[in-house]
Amino acid sequence: MGSNPMGLIVALDSPDRGFEGLVEDLCGVVDGFKLGLPLLMGRGPGYAAELRSRCREGIWIADLKLADIGHVMKLTTSLVVDHVDAVIAHGFVGVKGALGELKEFLESRGRKLIVVASMSHPGAEEVYDKALPLILDAIEELGPWGVVAPATRPHVTTSIRERLGPRVAIVSPGVGAQGAEPGAALCAGADYEIVGRLIVSSPDPRSAALAVREAQRRRLASCGRG
Amino acid sequence: MGSNPMGLIVALDSPDRGFEGLVEDLCGVVDGFKLGLPLLMGRGPGYAAELRSRCREGIWIADLKLADIGHVMKLTTSLVVDHVDAVIAHGFVGVKGALGELKEFLESRGRKLIVVASMSHPGAEEVYDKALPLILDAIEELGPWGVVAPATRPHVTTSIRERLGPRVAIVSPGVGAQGAEPGAALCAGADYEIVGRLIVSSPDPRSAALAVREAQRRRLASCGRG
Repeated sequence: MGSNPMGLIVALDSPDRGFEGLVEDLCGVVDGFKLGLPLLMGRGPGYAAELRSRCREGIWIADLKLADIGHVMKLTTSLVVDHVDAVIAHGFVGVKGALGELKEFLESRGRKLIVVASMSHPGAEEVYDKALPLILDAIEELGPWGVVAPATRPHVTTSIRERLGPRVAIVSPGVGAQGAEPGAALCAGADYEIVGRLIVSSPDPRSAALAVREAQRRRLASCGRG
Repeated sequence: MGSNPMGLIVALDSPDRGFEGLVEDLCGVVDGFKLGLPLLMGRGPGYAAELRSRCREGIWIADLKLADIGHVMKLTTSLVVDHVDAVIAHGFVGVKGALGELKEFLESRGRKLIVVASMSHPGAEEVYDKALPLILDAIEELGPWGVVAPATRPHVTTSIRERLGPRVAIVSPGVGAQGAEPGAALCAGADYEIVGRLIVSSPDPRSAALAVREAQRRRLASCGRG
């Protein structure tokens, strides 16, 4: 993971607009795309294949935020598994009868599991953060390819990196509209920052993405990871 | 809630089959239908309207198991809000910037919020159950119409009922394929039991539902709630 300290993934969430042109504009400029549940439910899971046909590079992630029993998570995942590289599920549902079954299913299809360890909004402090040690126990037992940790609270990301070591990929949402500055999560130990509205709602998404890249570069230089 | 100690809701999850005939068969026999995320993503959110046109009574629940920031949960919910009475989200994500925004949105559309307080699979003991006091703090602050508590672990349901009082509706999954017997969760304080595969995968779903009703009746008589 450390080989790419500049990761930038763009979040596509709204079901109300087509993202074909945006994906073509950003292809090669960013490191991947994260497709949100509203988009995949509103446009249908086949839309992931349609978008991917516009950009065959980078990592494609279905951000289903799965949080159910294994049987149901597998049913949902089977709808998109052929179209993406990775799927996101929540760590708080635990391993037995849930994430363990999902990971086995994804690995059998050559896909990656990314597990939410913490979230980016203020309400994450109410329950999620307090359960973090238990969630990290479950994640350590599970051994997923990646985890989600918030860019908005970099100390949480740093403590997750310290606990899980260098091998797991850390992806960090919360950059831009939610308040975190580009590069802050990378400095805290993340591999990829996820940016949604700041790029997607820009009149010129390609320039916005390049500006985020430049801001990441400056921030990384200042924290010594650049 | 106490006026109907016999609630039975049928879970429809699989995107691989049509449920139109099943809904017609079960209409009037059960108290409602819970539509799972795999079904709503695989068939499209409009399928909720199609199914509901086959049975205009009972409660219709979109079991999206939402667990995201408020902005994204509202985008997802807006896809089904016209077709259902209630939507399920996870208590784990907290109130601020998450469930608070979702509840406000649902109430503005005259719809109910049901919050997962605990789950029915073995992995729920790893994190979810240990965070239960914090989750119940968030639920108490939020004041949703209903909560989800597991039929498979009735003592959890009982403690949730004791903590939240008589006004909140408790819906309990885990009956049948997951191991809980019909009526056990009702005896523990639930208002509705959710049954999926035991009825849906039966060669005669209507008879299976009537058998569940009869088993609930016997169990309730034995625990003094009948």
